[in-house]
Amino acid sequence: MITRARQKSAQESAALMITRSGIRIREDEKAGIEVVDFGLGRLEEEGVQVLTLLQTGRISVKVLVLMPNQTEPEHWHPPVGDDPGKEETIRVVSGTVFFYVQGEDTLKHGFLVKGKEEYYTLRHEIILKPGDQITFQPGEKHWFQARDEGAVLFSFSSVARDAMDRFTDPDIVRTVRIADK
Amino acid sequence: MITRARQKSAQESAALMITRSGIRIREDEKAGIEVVDFGLGRLEEEGVQVLTLLQTGRISVKVLVLMPNQTEPEHWHPPVGDDPGKEETIRVVSGTVFFYVQGEDTLKHGFLVKGKEEYYTLRHEIILKPGDQITFQPGEKHWFQARDEGAVLFSFSSVARDAMDRFTDPDIVRTVRIADK
Repeated sequence: MITRARQKSAQESAALMITRSGIRIREDEKAGIEVVDFGLGRLEEEGVQVLTLLQTGRISVKVLVLMPNQTEPEHWHPPVGDDPGKEETIRVVSGTVFFYVQGEDTLKHGFLVKGKEEYYTLRHEIILKPGDQITFQPGEKHWFQARDEGAVLFSFSSVARDAMDRFTDPDIVRTVRIADK
Repeated sequence: MITRARQKSAQESAALMITRSGIRIREDEKAGIEVVDFGLGRLEEEGVQVLTLLQTGRISVKVLVLMPNQTEPEHWHPPVGDDPGKEETIRVVSGTVFFYVQGEDTLKHGFLVKGKEEYYTLRHEIILKPGDQITFQPGEKHWFQARDEGAVLFSFSSVARDAMDRFTDPDIVRTVRIADK
């Protein structure tokens, strides 16, 4: 649950970070920035701000904003009907981003969210800077994190069905609920 | 046919325009900018510069650069095997772009390439500014043009198979040939 006031302030911060990163967005797009707390109610720690630039039956393009030290929880994109699942490439626009994927534990520069260690099972660290990109195959688990400067990223993918995403943390609810007060 | 020197200078100009538009690209990407003269040998009039950021079996992301008054000739993306054809969304990053699609003749701000009028059959003008975007369905004919300031655009699409693109002008050859001298 996020309050409407918190949603609005997060939208404004995200819009500012997007603009500063060099991505030009329209005023009507700014109001559509989705503030996602994954139903955990601790947006600053686990959350992401999402601006969908394009969504068709075949492809999706989103701008993702991570506030300083905000973490997008471990998740994967499962098959949905005829679709083998979302294939996603994330390209860093601004900031440094710490990605975690399957493989040897090399976690060094990022951190596990306190008290949630068991829901961050991937510990193989890949550090990406602006201009770098990484592709996740359908079903491939991943999580990522920004540190002090926050980050702006593009997500280029086959059709996104965010509500179908699966998370390691069983407490996560992807559909955002906004409280009017 | 393009000379290697002309290719290099066009790559450099395109890289500069991309960077100025706010899109961050890596040094190794700059060298991969494709300079496309459509086999017509008049790059300044009919041509495009293309940087492929992403190409998988499902999606493609490209940055397109139009030099001042350069025109991308009328074309469409036909079905290829199981694929109904490329679905493409173009989003303007910098500059004003004049798109031409099926519909009433409203051509006013752009121009038909001199001597090639018969190969520009679409005359319905749509003017897009930075932040605006337009989607072309598979098989949907289109052409577009920049005026004095040139333009930088994103092309987000289902898988691109550029060599299979079809053009109204029968003289066009999409595969680029570079002359060593």
